[in-house]
Amino acid sequence: MASVTFKGVFPILVTPFDDHGNLDLESFDRTVRFMADVGVDGVTIIGVLGESNRMLDAEREQLIKTAVGAGGRIPVIVGTSYSGTRATLELSRVAESLGAAGVMVTPSRESVPNEDRIFEFFQQVAAGISIPIVVQDHPASTQVHMSVPLILRLIREIPLVACIKEEAVPTPPRITALLNGIGDRAVTILTGLGALYGAFDLARGAHGFMTGFAFPEVLLALVRSAQNKDFDTVHEIYHRYLPLIVYEQQPGVALRKEIFRLRGLIASSYVRHPGTNIDPTTAGHLKSLLQKMLPGVDITRPVEV
Amino acid sequence: MASVTFKGVFPILVTPFDDHGNLDLESFDRTVRFMADVGVDGVTIIGVLGESNRMLDAEREQLIKTAVGAGGRIPVIVGTSYSGTRATLELSRVAESLGAAGVMVTPSRESVPNEDRIFEFFQQVAAGISIPIVVQDHPASTQVHMSVPLILRLIREIPLVACIKEEAVPTPPRITALLNGIGDRAVTILTGLGALYGAFDLARGAHGFMTGFAFPEVLLALVRSAQNKDFDTVHEIYHRYLPLIVYEQQPGVALRKEIFRLRGLIASSYVRHPGTNIDPTTAGHLKSLLQKMLPGVDITRPVEV
Amino acid sequence: MASVTFKGVFPILVTPFDDHGNLDLESFDRTVRFMADVGVDGVTIIGVLGESNRMLDAEREQLIKTAVGAGGRIPVIVGTSYSGTRATLELSRVAESLGAAGVMVTPSRESVPNEDRIFEFFQQVAAGISIPIVVQDHPASTQVHMSVPLILRLIREIPLVACIKEEAVPTPPRITALLNGIGDRAVTILTGLGALYGAFDLARGAHGFMTGFAFPEVLLALVRSAQNKDFDTVHEIYHRYLPLIVYEQQPGVALRKEIFRLRGLIASSYVRHPGTNIDPTTAGHLKSLLQKMLPGVDITRPVEV
Amino acid sequence: MASVTFKGVFPILVTPFDDHGNLDLESFDRTVRFMADVGVDGVTIIGVLGESNRMLDAEREQLIKTAVGAGGRIPVIVGTSYSGTRATLELSRVAESLGAAGVMVTPSRESVPNEDRIFEFFQQVAAGISIPIVVQDHPASTQVHMSVPLILRLIREIPLVACIKEEAVPTPPRITALLNGIGDRAVTILTGLGALYGAFDLARGAHGFMTGFAFPEVLLALVRSAQNKDFDTVHEIYHRYLPLIVYEQQPGVALRKEIFRLRGLIASSYVRHPGTNIDPTTAGHLKSLLQKMLPGVDITRPVEV
Repeated sequence: MASVTFKGVFPILVTPFDDHGNLDLESFDRTVRFMADVGVDGVTIIGVLGESNRMLDAEREQLIKTAVGAGGRIPVIVGTSYSGTRATLELSRVAESLGAAGVMVTPSRESVPNEDRIFEFFQQVAAGISIPIVVQDHPASTQVHMSVPLILRLIREIPLVACIKEEAVPTPPRITALLNGIGDRAVTILTGLGALYGAFDLARGAHGFMTGFAFPEVLLALVRSAQNKDFDTVHEIYHRYLPLIVYEQQPGVALRKEIFRLRGLIASSYVRHPGTNIDPTTAGHLKSLLQKMLPGVDITRPVEV
Repeated sequence: MASVTFKGVFPILVTPFDDHGNLDLESFDRTVRFMADVGVDGVTIIGVLGESNRMLDAEREQLIKTAVGAGGRIPVIVGTSYSGTRATLELSRVAESLGAAGVMVTPSRESVPNEDRIFEFFQQVAAGISIPIVVQDHPASTQVHMSVPLILRLIREIPLVACIKEEAVPTPPRITALLNGIGDRAVTILTGLGALYGAFDLARGAHGFMTGFAFPEVLLALVRSAQNKDFDTVHEIYHRYLPLIVYEQQPGVALRKEIFRLRGLIASSYVRHPGTNIDPTTAGHLKSLLQKMLPGVDITRPVEV
Repeated sequence: MASVTFKGVFPILVTPFDDHGNLDLESFDRTVRFMADVGVDGVTIIGVLGESNRMLDAEREQLIKTAVGAGGRIPVIVGTSYSGTRATLELSRVAESLGAAGVMVTPSRESVPNEDRIFEFFQQVAAGISIPIVVQDHPASTQVHMSVPLILRLIREIPLVACIKEEAVPTPPRITALLNGIGDRAVTILTGLGALYGAFDLARGAHGFMTGFAFPEVLLALVRSAQNKDFDTVHEIYHRYLPLIVYEQQPGVALRKEIFRLRGLIASSYVRHPGTNIDPTTAGHLKSLLQKMLPGVDITRPVEV
Repeated sequence: MASVTFKGVFPILVTPFDDHGNLDLESFDRTVRFMADVGVDGVTIIGVLGESNRMLDAEREQLIKTAVGAGGRIPVIVGTSYSGTRATLELSRVAESLGAAGVMVTPSRESVPNEDRIFEFFQQVAAGISIPIVVQDHPASTQVHMSVPLILRLIREIPLVACIKEEAVPTPPRITALLNGIGDRAVTILTGLGALYGAFDLARGAHGFMTGFAFPEVLLALVRSAQNKDFDTVHEIYHRYLPLIVYEQQPGVALRKEIFRLRGLIASSYVRHPGTNIDPTTAGHLKSLLQKMLPGVDITRPVEV
């Protein structure tokens, strides 16, 4: 198992299906290898973007095995969130036993929201595994609003918590509040949300990205400049690609899958029901936008930024 | 596989665990056999009360096998709701292959609620199985509000839809509206909600109960009287047990499990996290209430009503 | 202004309209006088049952004036919850200046739920008035889940908080938790929810009712017996009227208004859009139920329990 | 009263307060006059951005009078959404009587979502006024998801419906679907969401903007180019200002108010509780961003784009 620092760029991968909705592990393998070639710091699989909530347990195992097998040099983080604590723990154990370098976990909405229950949830999961935990804070998908003091408590009291994937808007002041409170725990903050607030979040001190933007090359360039404290370049790169970032982060997995398809990584952009598949007009607009943003570039190969 | 009419009483069973949260299949087997002895028309497993959202797929299979094995004479209905359509279909297929007499399905809340998606969800599940479907209409747990016209469309266009488990409050006018719209389709309406509105719903024409009230003997007596059009007796029985019905249907699975335990059916009332376990004061009040409602009765045996 | 102890029975009143939706202040005056004659300890107006969220500010003022004028001997509590803190404060000031004995306030759901904001909300309202505050804890209507520690903090730090209207299910263990934490602050707990859990909540130590059940005579008898520690009688009365309690507390204001109409208090059971008016079948069933529960009783006069 | 076409740019205005939360009508008057000078096609007041849900009725009237008085040459659209149908109607009547050129209305979330109730809501409001209605479709603030068929029904059956403010993401395919269904009704589509998807929505055929982006000069330039079918220039302008658009549309009113303050239009960026006021770090970052995006520009005067 690869060790992992949770600094840099961790693309969240889509789960590829064929046109009948069956897992397409070949495409998945190809995608992971491509990411390794691009030079990312790890990949995250079976997240929201990976349609995790539409996946059977057996499929989860196949995806983990494929990613770990293909990842080789790079760590594989596995989304294991589930509506019950024990199931989350068991899925995390499976991930660990199959070679995952970490798990990404987000609490699910209980009928009676309760900060103590959320703490216990993470505590119980941590008690059963020995790989690091990425706490995902994404109320838009979970309907769970974690307060900054709660997240700091998770950091303080649960040693396996190694990273916060911060996606509660507005993210910039939240990142500042977290960094001010972390103290000397070696916990990192990664931003998500398709990199929508990338430059602003890096300026606040975020350590990188864990998100599904389909051009991780851009994110790598952003992080490199941020690590060099060259925030003018961060802004310049961010500004350059911002129309694509904005377009791509629109809700729905289909747009992202279509770009992965255009990049030659997956065979079909099929989304499982009740998700929406891409319509021809939108696919056409996306293609035009890509040509405008990356004129003459062969996007099936790593892009130079 | 037993055939099933969806008239009468179908207890929804709790999922028994030991005090560490492991499946207790022996208790489950005992519970199903007890229900068969009591004379219910079928049992429903892995519903909300069965903590379905805290269960791994492998555990679901074990529960189905146990219930079908123990049920013998009575049909077993399996809750197979899942957040994605394909997973719901696959879980339903598994249930069918293991001997389930029907599946109970409720739509999950999508980020963009849409009646057409809900229709397609049921349509696609129906297309892959050949056992009847119980449509559960329980917005309190699903946050999905199905309109009466949508439910009637499901009935009209999907032949496998055989029963509506109606739990959208207020239920009485809704049952009337559904019965008025069903036409000549042989679809039944069962009421749930712990039998809270039992007498009122039977008076509207409901065909019975699919719910977790821990004394199905009472529900059987209610249905028998309703079938004889003896609504004075329905009211009398309902009134007699109403404090217990009200107490038991309070939110949380723990109260029900504790009664199942007191009835000698399950070994522990343990609820999986983040559910709440029963506290001693509440357990004491429950015991007093049972003694007041059923003085001198041995509740470990079928109760005479 | 009458002083108020928040022990006993405080009916929540419906807001009467004519058949065109205009305020019917004559009916409102009659209702308040009837409640005073029945011997309640106060009335609460412009709550959820009073369709508060469908009322213009000018209408609120008319209702307060009418109730205070009619109340005479009994205190009038005014619901003043609003989505912004300042508006809640201003409406509370208006209520105080017009002679209200207290205000009932519940926090509204913000896009980012936050316990500190809820605390500040109550703190700022309290800072601008000098009459006591009833904190309403009713997540079913507000979607706000207040933890027990938060409510205890409100009690501890805001002297004007005089009463908790506890309606977060399951209520019994919550009432125990609150009573254990109140310490020596003279704060009372009233139960609501149409008295659905009345006997159980009184057994836990609740000091009475603030709710809309249309026969406050029953609630007065329950409280009297509870104050005498005669819980057998509490249970007997509760059990006797429970079918009516269960029927009446179904969601929707129309049922309650229809009973108030049948009691001769209001001229019309009209509910403002988008609320649902009562349908003839339901009205017929309600009438039958009333006759069954109160055979031969003239419900237009105070009922003997 | 000015007539209005609902094509072009309609800024949604913030409601200015002093540092104690009192209405600052002088700032409001100044803002409206500035917008008229800039050449916008109208202004919209008392929307979500205007903290409408924190406003008393008397304050609403003051704001309408001030805006209509200051607007002079330009139409004033008034947000009149309220949780009850009759209150929405009454607030709309008040707006009309005070000189509003139109009202902006969005349905509120009922406990039981129902498309027929939403239709009736708009129908009843329309029946009581004679100025045009802008239907706001913004699920993020209302939690109400209107289907495309429902919106088309509103357009088809309610002649006063003159404009759809489309803010249900992803907006581009929705705008296409609406335009395909409108037929020969002269209804326009305006995009909102702080112009986040401005270029993409104009490319789909949107007729302009009704949104709070604090530089309507940019939006006017975008619309002008779109009307000339010069979508390369649309893209160029959009791309140029996109970092500012992205930053400004983050949730919370405070950022927008701060820009209005920096533009010299309002005296204070104070937000009413429980809204969040701007913190110094964020204010500093905002100022840097403005200098980067508009170097050397005096933003207190209309900006040339």
